[in-house]
Amino acid sequence: MRVGILGATGYSGAVLFSLLKQHPQVTEIDLYGHEGQSTARRLLADEIPAFSNAALPIVPFVPQDIMATTDCLFCATPAGITKNLMEPFIAQNFPVIDLSGDYRLKDPTQYEKWYHKKAAPSHLLKEAAYGLSEFLTHPGHYIANPGCYATATLLGLAPLALKKLIEPTSIIVDAKSGISGAGKKLSATSHYTFINENACLYKINEHQHIPEIMQQLQQWNAAIPAIQFTTTLIPITRGIMVTIYAKAAAGLTATQIQAAYAQVYAQSPFVRLRNHGFPTIQDVKGSNYCDIGYNYNPKTNTITVVATIDNLLKGAAGQAVQNFNKLSGFTETAGLPELPSFP
Amino acid sequence: MRVGILGATGYSGAVLFSLLKQHPQVTEIDLYGHEGQSTARRLLADEIPAFSNAALPIVPFVPQDIMATTDCLFCATPAGITKNLMEPFIAQNFPVIDLSGDYRLKDPTQYEKWYHKKAAPSHLLKEAAYGLSEFLTHPGHYIANPGCYATATLLGLAPLALKKLIEPTSIIVDAKSGISGAGKKLSATSHYTFINENACLYKINEHQHIPEIMQQLQQWNAAIPAIQFTTTLIPITRGIMVTIYAKAAAGLTATQIQAAYAQVYAQSPFVRLRNHGFPTIQDVKGSNYCDIGYNYNPKTNTITVVATIDNLLKGAAGQAVQNFNKLSGFTETAGLPELPSFP
Amino acid sequence: MRVGILGATGYSGAVLFSLLKQHPQVTEIDLYGHEGQSTARRLLADEIPAFSNAALPIVPFVPQDIMATTDCLFCATPAGITKNLMEPFIAQNFPVIDLSGDYRLKDPTQYEKWYHKKAAPSHLLKEAAYGLSEFLTHPGHYIANPGCYATATLLGLAPLALKKLIEPTSIIVDAKSGISGAGKKLSATSHYTFINENACLYKINEHQHIPEIMQQLQQWNAAIPAIQFTTTLIPITRGIMVTIYAKAAAGLTATQIQAAYAQVYAQSPFVRLRNHGFPTIQDVKGSNYCDIGYNYNPKTNTITVVATIDNLLKGAAGQAVQNFNKLSGFTETAGLPELPSFP
Amino acid sequence: MRVGILGATGYSGAVLFSLLKQHPQVTEIDLYGHEGQSTARRLLADEIPAFSNAALPIVPFVPQDIMATTDCLFCATPAGITKNLMEPFIAQNFPVIDLSGDYRLKDPTQYEKWYHKKAAPSHLLKEAAYGLSEFLTHPGHYIANPGCYATATLLGLAPLALKKLIEPTSIIVDAKSGISGAGKKLSATSHYTFINENACLYKINEHQHIPEIMQQLQQWNAAIPAIQFTTTLIPITRGIMVTIYAKAAAGLTATQIQAAYAQVYAQSPFVRLRNHGFPTIQDVKGSNYCDIGYNYNPKTNTITVVATIDNLLKGAAGQAVQNFNKLSGFTETAGLPELPSFP
Repeated sequence: MRVGILGATGYSGAVLFSLLKQHPQVTEIDLYGHEGQSTARRLLADEIPAFSNAALPIVPFVPQDIMATTDCLFCATPAGITKNLMEPFIAQNFPVIDLSGDYRLKDPTQYEKWYHKKAAPSHLLKEAAYGLSEFLTHPGHYIANPGCYATATLLGLAPLALKKLIEPTSIIVDAKSGISGAGKKLSATSHYTFINENACLYKINEHQHIPEIMQQLQQWNAAIPAIQFTTTLIPITRGIMVTIYAKAAAGLTATQIQAAYAQVYAQSPFVRLRNHGFPTIQDVKGSNYCDIGYNYNPKTNTITVVATIDNLLKGAAGQAVQNFNKLSGFTETAGLPELPSFP
Repeated sequence: MRVGILGATGYSGAVLFSLLKQHPQVTEIDLYGHEGQSTARRLLADEIPAFSNAALPIVPFVPQDIMATTDCLFCATPAGITKNLMEPFIAQNFPVIDLSGDYRLKDPTQYEKWYHKKAAPSHLLKEAAYGLSEFLTHPGHYIANPGCYATATLLGLAPLALKKLIEPTSIIVDAKSGISGAGKKLSATSHYTFINENACLYKINEHQHIPEIMQQLQQWNAAIPAIQFTTTLIPITRGIMVTIYAKAAAGLTATQIQAAYAQVYAQSPFVRLRNHGFPTIQDVKGSNYCDIGYNYNPKTNTITVVATIDNLLKGAAGQAVQNFNKLSGFTETAGLPELPSFP
Repeated sequence: MRVGILGATGYSGAVLFSLLKQHPQVTEIDLYGHEGQSTARRLLADEIPAFSNAALPIVPFVPQDIMATTDCLFCATPAGITKNLMEPFIAQNFPVIDLSGDYRLKDPTQYEKWYHKKAAPSHLLKEAAYGLSEFLTHPGHYIANPGCYATATLLGLAPLALKKLIEPTSIIVDAKSGISGAGKKLSATSHYTFINENACLYKINEHQHIPEIMQQLQQWNAAIPAIQFTTTLIPITRGIMVTIYAKAAAGLTATQIQAAYAQVYAQSPFVRLRNHGFPTIQDVKGSNYCDIGYNYNPKTNTITVVATIDNLLKGAAGQAVQNFNKLSGFTETAGLPELPSFP
Repeated sequence: MRVGILGATGYSGAVLFSLLKQHPQVTEIDLYGHEGQSTARRLLADEIPAFSNAALPIVPFVPQDIMATTDCLFCATPAGITKNLMEPFIAQNFPVIDLSGDYRLKDPTQYEKWYHKKAAPSHLLKEAAYGLSEFLTHPGHYIANPGCYATATLLGLAPLALKKLIEPTSIIVDAKSGISGAGKKLSATSHYTFINENACLYKINEHQHIPEIMQQLQQWNAAIPAIQFTTTLIPITRGIMVTIYAKAAAGLTATQIQAAYAQVYAQSPFVRLRNHGFPTIQDVKGSNYCDIGYNYNPKTNTITVVATIDNLLKGAAGQAVQNFNKLSGFTETAGLPELPSFP
């Protein structure tokens, strides 16, 4: 297959390019820069010195040409770009994997509230499938790849929510993230001297991944009214750890918890469950795995779940490839590393 | 005053030595190594190259000599040392600031359960005051300096607990800590290649600071039955951030929360409250401050409190000096830095 | 092919295992633990939580069995192990890639001087080829994979040494290395609180890679009598940067330097030359590339060369696979990542 | 004394403010923002959350007012500011410590070449003393505080240059620096995701500290024509390590080297010499010390010198206070920490 990437010069796009280069079913990759972007008409190697052997040109984004020459389009763009560009692709049922947040929320007013931007039209939004791979049964043509925090949080919570093992009002998510999640754009919180030797909460109760988490959670369990979701930057480049706390439903046993996780993820090659202990971020770095551990504390009647992912793999480009595999009928694991990059 | 330090070669002891060297009321410092310790009869400069200008000998620990020549003893020892050594000092009401956990818990069975060691005798334990400085009204002679996690957690929770602003069963503490808290002793979790670019939970529901937190919380509010307390190592050398979640009591207003914090800490020079936003670890590094921010989320009825400290200052040596000042009748801030070491 | 790894639980061994798992010509991997090692008869997944999906047993090391069932043996062992174990393999011309230093030095007295251990017998040493891949023309059967520092230093110096572009007595190498090079074994210099926010020279004029660098350099240019070689640990997990300084030979031009590098590495897929500027460590992380930049300063008549590698890839497991490819007649790049893991 | 600071919101200015707050001879500190700077008329606490207890206003910079109310002015400004502002202070012999590079170079054409800015007038430049404290015998009124790299390099080289122990054309300086040296301003090389887990050379043969190093070196030893000076960023916040290489002069003995260092620094409280081994960056962090170690390798006839400093203390604000003490006739060590902040 020949595939295209819009936005290969950002972190997610670069990882996506690397993965697709190794993908056994991908024979050619085209790179596009959108209008106004300074990278269009340059080489990928000029933008990313680490890819100095990738002398691929970044060409302007022309939808009809893309649809004529390639088989699938990946969009690794910041929020606010694809909502204006995707109509022709959706109109023609052309396969798209969109890593941005523009098509994740079904309700345009939610997008506008959390993203502070105008939403894509409703008739386009409804064509997009929310691509949490482990639960994506009908990919359709347009996949809205989930946010990094949403991926870890939802995979961690799914068995508890689906099996109704927790008190619906008690969910608290304390998420820790590496700095690559904030992207290549310079910012005060990504300045080395600020965030090194530091930890810093941000977007208190305002993170734009909250509504996509709620949208999915409520599909699983309509009784969940809201979650307390907090994000803390920690000084690492890659990785997310979400620590989830919830009160156990009445009468719950530890065996039930274990059975729920085992059952829900029985067919999921990228979810690795721990029988005891919790995963670390190092355990998943450079891989598409989501490692999950859980613990029940009878003294506080609290279940603690820890889920770790590489934010650029399972939280972005890796899951995009996984979704591409599902969309294209390939083996789910095709082109994805079998082992994390340890150490 | 002339003071002594038992255990100046560990991280807390080294910081303590530095602070006392600058203390306006301290004229001389003696260093002791306890029996069996290889450092006895060496120089501090040999143990800590950064202190190469401190050619002070470490002499054997002889209680009667210490009491004869000095005015106060600091113990910066690991758990399990002072419980066997302090009887003569307590018997003579000699001023001691003990940074270890050996005299923090009034109930010896609790110590034995959480520390997996035999406790100090009860008649000695009852002579020790728990030295959370901001709440230490009767220092007595023997001060059990609090644990680092306990300090941040208790200072963050005190107004909520004292003023009964939260549901007593709902407290969750997600604590993040730098690696210096684990001490100088080599260990797998302190190995650079393990913990760099990583985050790692440890001692799940088994951290030995839990019982001292509970002991103090229940003095403030007997209705609190337990807390969910989780510790995560993050790759920084110094600093602790505790993120505390609790459900608000019925009818609580944001103004009440603010008033509670303002009132409880009105006389506390080392607690700095944020009117908005949350503190970072960098905000307190190298200082004795505990910075506290709080937020109420009406959607989840949850109060989030964030407290940050330097684990070796307010979490250990700094609070020890603050307690020394209280014990000795000096200004509370004497010998402690006025500003954090920014950046 | 079916291959075996002796020592897959260390850092180099783990990376080697990951690479071989993805290698298109490798169908099966066996893992061995040598006598006395506590890992024998355990699973790889027990030793490396990041590899929890690799439930491969580590079986005892029995040479005849290995030669009977596999096609090539990799040894990712510390110095001092293979010198006692390899006789049967060498006797039968069985293909071995030895990542340790035991067979790199032709002169056993040099090994004994720098490694402070008894050397392998001379008749075995002479059967081993020094496996600096870019210059390995006759692999033979037993390849002594070069040290990480040696790889970066030699690749950086080769064109200057071969083409006699520098004053032979003027070579100074200032090498910076990440901490994974020191291995999994706990040590004071690998303790997080020591090396984080620090930089530290070690093994001043005593590093055991010096003799293998000299052995190769003198083959290229017998006039080089010695090099000044200094190693500094910096707080990163992976990567080596060597900064090489040498006085230019009389009459040298910048064009000659560029031509020398271009010519020497014209056929080397894993050496990437910079036309201007110097490479960073990030440019090569997670890849088998050695990136090289150079600069001539007429004011000081000094050539500065910077070479960067991933110490566990091109500096260990990656070069081992590259050598395996050469030994086996596969494409030199087979099984090795095409792009670094950016960011 | 009452002192003023122009530019207290940058990293050097913040450290300077902290030091002066603890200085026994300083009773009051005024803060100034220069025209056009957005910080003027704000509070220091607004600019630096870590200083939230420092509710000091930043007032506009009015030379006559400053000279009327204070006793000494510190300028912690980027290059290019003080060259336009200092005439009135110099005209009236008002004490100024200038941390910027604007008055370090006696030759204005050198400033213009290396800084790419118009220089201060020559008649003002000649009033400024280069403030390398250990060699500052006649402070005058206007002290140009040295650059961070220049401080470490010059202190490391001084005994060798003064005593003519090295070949004058052979000096190579390989300097490693933390990221705080690049200041608060956002930049691609200070972006966390770029420089974390990385090392990066910059300003190859173009660093603006080269001319001030040469200016001073040639005063010590006119035979030194040039130095090879290379700067590498490493992922730490604070600290500089310079590794200096030079060929030994004919007939040199190790004893002579030791004697030279001991003699030159016999009266220097902030230079700590190592009898064996090399200092680390951690050894000096948070202090005004310059730690120096040296080694002679007979095989290469090379002397290696390692000097480490905290770039914001001895490399900026600490040395400024040391110079202030010399200028004011105070004890050289007044207001400066006696011990590094270990760990």
